[in-house]
Amino acid sequence: MKPVRTFASDNHSAVHPHILDYLQKINEQGHAPSYTGDPVTIKAQSLFRDIFGKGAQVVFVPSGTGANILALKVLLQQPYEALVCTNVSHVFEEETGAVSASIGRHIFTLPHIAGKISLDDLQAEVAFRRSLGFHSPLPKVVSIACTTEYGTFYTLQEIRAIADFCHKNDLYLHLDGCRLPNAIAALGCSLQEYTSSAGVDVLSFGGAKNGLMSAEAVVVFNAPKTDLLRMQKQAMQLVSKMRYVSGQFVPYLERDLWLRNARHANELAKRLGDGLKTKLGSAVSFTQPVATNQVFCILPPTIKTKLRSAGHEFYDWNSPGEVRFVTSWDNTDEDVDGLLSLVNIGQS
Amino acid sequence: MKPVRTFASDNHSAVHPHILDYLQKINEQGHAPSYTGDPVTIKAQSLFRDIFGKGAQVVFVPSGTGANILALKVLLQQPYEALVCTNVSHVFEEETGAVSASIGRHIFTLPHIAGKISLDDLQAEVAFRRSLGFHSPLPKVVSIACTTEYGTFYTLQEIRAIADFCHKNDLYLHLDGCRLPNAIAALGCSLQEYTSSAGVDVLSFGGAKNGLMSAEAVVVFNAPKTDLLRMQKQAMQLVSKMRYVSGQFVPYLERDLWLRNARHANELAKRLGDGLKTKLGSAVSFTQPVATNQVFCILPPTIKTKLRSAGHEFYDWNSPGEVRFVTSWDNTDEDVDGLLSLVNIGQS
Amino acid sequence: MKPVRTFASDNHSAVHPHILDYLQKINEQGHAPSYTGDPVTIKAQSLFRDIFGKGAQVVFVPSGTGANILALKVLLQQPYEALVCTNVSHVFEEETGAVSASIGRHIFTLPHIAGKISLDDLQAEVAFRRSLGFHSPLPKVVSIACTTEYGTFYTLQEIRAIADFCHKNDLYLHLDGCRLPNAIAALGCSLQEYTSSAGVDVLSFGGAKNGLMSAEAVVVFNAPKTDLLRMQKQAMQLVSKMRYVSGQFVPYLERDLWLRNARHANELAKRLGDGLKTKLGSAVSFTQPVATNQVFCILPPTIKTKLRSAGHEFYDWNSPGEVRFVTSWDNTDEDVDGLLSLVNIGQS
Amino acid sequence: MKPVRTFASDNHSAVHPHILDYLQKINEQGHAPSYTGDPVTIKAQSLFRDIFGKGAQVVFVPSGTGANILALKVLLQQPYEALVCTNVSHVFEEETGAVSASIGRHIFTLPHIAGKISLDDLQAEVAFRRSLGFHSPLPKVVSIACTTEYGTFYTLQEIRAIADFCHKNDLYLHLDGCRLPNAIAALGCSLQEYTSSAGVDVLSFGGAKNGLMSAEAVVVFNAPKTDLLRMQKQAMQLVSKMRYVSGQFVPYLERDLWLRNARHANELAKRLGDGLKTKLGSAVSFTQPVATNQVFCILPPTIKTKLRSAGHEFYDWNSPGEVRFVTSWDNTDEDVDGLLSLVNIGQS
Repeated sequence: MKPVRTFASDNHSAVHPHILDYLQKINEQGHAPSYTGDPVTIKAQSLFRDIFGKGAQVVFVPSGTGANILALKVLLQQPYEALVCTNVSHVFEEETGAVSASIGRHIFTLPHIAGKISLDDLQAEVAFRRSLGFHSPLPKVVSIACTTEYGTFYTLQEIRAIADFCHKNDLYLHLDGCRLPNAIAALGCSLQEYTSSAGVDVLSFGGAKNGLMSAEAVVVFNAPKTDLLRMQKQAMQLVSKMRYVSGQFVPYLERDLWLRNARHANELAKRLGDGLKTKLGSAVSFTQPVATNQVFCILPPTIKTKLRSAGHEFYDWNSPGEVRFVTSWDNTDEDVDGLLSLVNIGQS
Repeated sequence: MKPVRTFASDNHSAVHPHILDYLQKINEQGHAPSYTGDPVTIKAQSLFRDIFGKGAQVVFVPSGTGANILALKVLLQQPYEALVCTNVSHVFEEETGAVSASIGRHIFTLPHIAGKISLDDLQAEVAFRRSLGFHSPLPKVVSIACTTEYGTFYTLQEIRAIADFCHKNDLYLHLDGCRLPNAIAALGCSLQEYTSSAGVDVLSFGGAKNGLMSAEAVVVFNAPKTDLLRMQKQAMQLVSKMRYVSGQFVPYLERDLWLRNARHANELAKRLGDGLKTKLGSAVSFTQPVATNQVFCILPPTIKTKLRSAGHEFYDWNSPGEVRFVTSWDNTDEDVDGLLSLVNIGQS
Repeated sequence: MKPVRTFASDNHSAVHPHILDYLQKINEQGHAPSYTGDPVTIKAQSLFRDIFGKGAQVVFVPSGTGANILALKVLLQQPYEALVCTNVSHVFEEETGAVSASIGRHIFTLPHIAGKISLDDLQAEVAFRRSLGFHSPLPKVVSIACTTEYGTFYTLQEIRAIADFCHKNDLYLHLDGCRLPNAIAALGCSLQEYTSSAGVDVLSFGGAKNGLMSAEAVVVFNAPKTDLLRMQKQAMQLVSKMRYVSGQFVPYLERDLWLRNARHANELAKRLGDGLKTKLGSAVSFTQPVATNQVFCILPPTIKTKLRSAGHEFYDWNSPGEVRFVTSWDNTDEDVDGLLSLVNIGQS
Repeated sequence: MKPVRTFASDNHSAVHPHILDYLQKINEQGHAPSYTGDPVTIKAQSLFRDIFGKGAQVVFVPSGTGANILALKVLLQQPYEALVCTNVSHVFEEETGAVSASIGRHIFTLPHIAGKISLDDLQAEVAFRRSLGFHSPLPKVVSIACTTEYGTFYTLQEIRAIADFCHKNDLYLHLDGCRLPNAIAALGCSLQEYTSSAGVDVLSFGGAKNGLMSAEAVVVFNAPKTDLLRMQKQAMQLVSKMRYVSGQFVPYLERDLWLRNARHANELAKRLGDGLKTKLGSAVSFTQPVATNQVFCILPPTIKTKLRSAGHEFYDWNSPGEVRFVTSWDNTDEDVDGLLSLVNIGQS
């Protein structure tokens, strides 16, 4: 049976063969300590410190929602401390209220520009909420996503400016990096430059969208004192056979697989965007720049129908006619070209 | 390198090769829907209904703590409703307070007899708490573990009696079945007889301790109306590439692997217990019956030291001198005999 | 010593003498049952049913935040259910995150028009959140305030339209009525017409801002099944000597004190607004209509300074130069005229 | 109408006239700042510092449950930190699960001896829970009640020993002092000696059971850094017209009313206990020492019936035949003698 590959979401993608090979190899070694402290987990933690700096503490979790919630749980220690994020932030919009239900914290939202927070809006919001005194929850953590929900990214300068603002104003900065590899592939800087060196305090570093099976990392650079393992277990993110979660990061980091996978997905998105433009000209309008591995555009209805009839999958998005294509590490030039071959200006 | 295999915990064991083979096979099929509704998850759910009955709703989660907490979150809908369990219950003692922190519910504990609740204690507790009226949290869910934390199990008759009591008294019954396969292997009844037919309302069905990688199931037979998927996502237990979690259950259930693994582990525990008795006679005393895959006994200190020097791992337990051995699906006769070969009455 | 009376907030006002007289009378009767069921509480509950209809369940609480949180706790039973309110709603902005911290629920905010929700915005929001499926918290309760945070009110028609929308869309309607008496005084309808008959499901009925000491009521017309007393005690709102809280409502309702107090405060706000307009002409601009007992306007800086120098208190508000005056049940014509006597166009 | 006075509970008692007089006096002063910072609240805080020491921070709350929960919320800052108390502790048994529901914290219970914790049990419990490592919630706060739920009290030496143990073991000590005045009246030491000087970290200081209307104080001597007002508002314990809550403490403390009321209640309990003993001899057995204002004893059924027929109220307690009498500040010698006049050995 020929494998199916769509553009619906990088969450639909398969697992990179190197990952399964490594899990197989772990498995042949028999028993190992559970929860934490096994050799594989220690090795994965060491690889993180090589990349992110000696001061990085890292734990491995099976769920993307879990990674973000654990990160915020670590940073928002007082019950009256609040999160600030955009109104399209995953932690606000797409995690079924886990911030409120699982850690009991308030969220203030800001408008976004192509998925990004504006520093002016952030400054105004923090100043306003603090002016309300004890009646108001106290802004304490800013959470940004990179890439954003719109496939865009913050420049290194932008992220440093937000981090500076945070640290001058007694705020922590959380980076939801479930697609951080795609941003790094586009930016060309190092992970350390973009995170710990830029002033990110806690990072959710994504794996499942970029070739892993079920593994994300929470990387803590700077946070109030706490017991990270107790936090992780209480948040239901400490799996017993941890080496099969942490182990997914070994080949991912050791061989720069995270970067190669992301770069490949980005290239396919560009190929797809360019192809649509060439084929459709003014009949397609792009609602966001094609910055990483997502393409947002308004397509003629007949083309949407034709593509879907042929089995291609992609999401309808916010505006009328808008669609989202996501390219994954395991999509191919042929996948893109196959889709493009169905696109023809005469049809629109 | 020769694989290591200890008796420290079935959480230390490896993954059964059939499971990895099946994940490999899934992987070759390319993309699939995320979170839920993919063909593998649908197949796994269908296998659960074949085994547990048509009315069973099932979701798959990556964490054992997550399975129990999600089960209780579904059953304890009113914020003043309380859990009743033993004082050695995993949900009370070993899940870092997740019941309080993640779902905000109160726990009443009962003494245990070899890990089991006594129906008399349960009746008295429920009657007493209700007599306190609105001042008291209201007992609403009884959670029992089978096998228990002491490797023992409830008979079919006992579990029916507890379920009957619960249903006559407006209570739900949750079964923490992280080692249920070992109990079923010992009892010889079917999973359906022991759970849905016996009156269990929600079951946490264990996988990771019995040969899976990182997968547990929450099986709902009877519960107040709720949106199970929203509950699961909010509880950080809905992983994006779900088929690699749910898929672990396909070979586990299809080939009765769950039962064969558990039976094997139970047989090894018996072999270990019998061997210790034969070798040590009155120099060993068993603090619990060897009912499933755990052996609790008091060993002479010299023997403990000798075993550990030779690399054997096992936990010290509650009483002075008491130790716990756990046999896993991947332990062998040779593992047991190798340990026993070091045990000699002359040493004690 | 002459009593001080400002326009800073109706929360600064004193207690109406009838209330203290009644508490004194209760006190002379000696002991009574605690928490609930005493004759005074029963009498107060009966007065509520006379006014709001036979089906009204009512409990009495000491705190305004407590009233709102208890109301929402009753209505938002599933942990993934969410509140919808304006972005200036007290429950979002001014209760220190109690919705998240004390009941663990998510909040979606809407823009406001003079403090009010627009039905179009509400429809769009509910439709959008539901379109996100299980990833999103589920809108379940709409909370509106009347009078609003800007002293305005919903017409009877508007409130019926919102209630109709809610009930057709499986939503509950909560009315934060901490200043409902002022709205009713302006509208001229009855409390029952405006609440239970209009489709309000749960009402927080205010007392402290309108002449009571420390007493609010939560009036439940239609809610999912729950144990209201357990909810109240768990929410720390069930005081032991309940009759001194519930008893404040007896003279408040029996003698229409709630209405007379509110009408008086409204008249003073009108007197103040009219006076400012007469005195200042185009030098004052009103940022909200003077609808009830609040006056929002932009004053010349010299006037603000002069008033404050003379001991008058009022809050600076959102826009540059904007101030808020609140008139209370115990302010007098003389208070208003005294302030106005300091206002002179020549000064601006 | 003659006032009713029973022995059911000190929660049934009336308000001391001095309190109502003072509220009346406050009321004549007109407006004052809301929530905090008004002259009456400042005065009450100053009186607390006079009595408890300069370092005492104090806030005033309307509810006894609220006082305890706020105290614990301040002390249990990490979500995995747990409370240790007796299994008859009010915070475990009688506050409808507010510790779990409102602050999300786990509770470990210990057996009690006449309502008191044994230091040996406490040591063993803390050692055991810590031995479980990250799997277990971490004991962080010990909460004791004085007087206990059985009317007994800790000696000054006992309370110092518990506080010393706590501070040597990184634990905080909370004292639920809802009836602390009765203990102090029996002990003869000062409030400061028994609390801050003895090592209590946070105190809930009771008012309503001892002549106030609806007022308790949370007195913080030593706690992790937090924003106490935000905590209080979020916990729904910050009433708007605060001076009518805080003001209750002014005459209570200024005139030693707290001590006189408690001493009187204690004397009546002694009179009642002595009277029962004299009248009934061996026909009455006391199940607890009559240490403060509560009498626990087993009465002949005919006497219970006779007393209740005559309108006397008291609670049935745990053991068969056991009853509890509570004497209040406003009970009189005549109340006691009236009851005793119905007690006659011949009846039993």
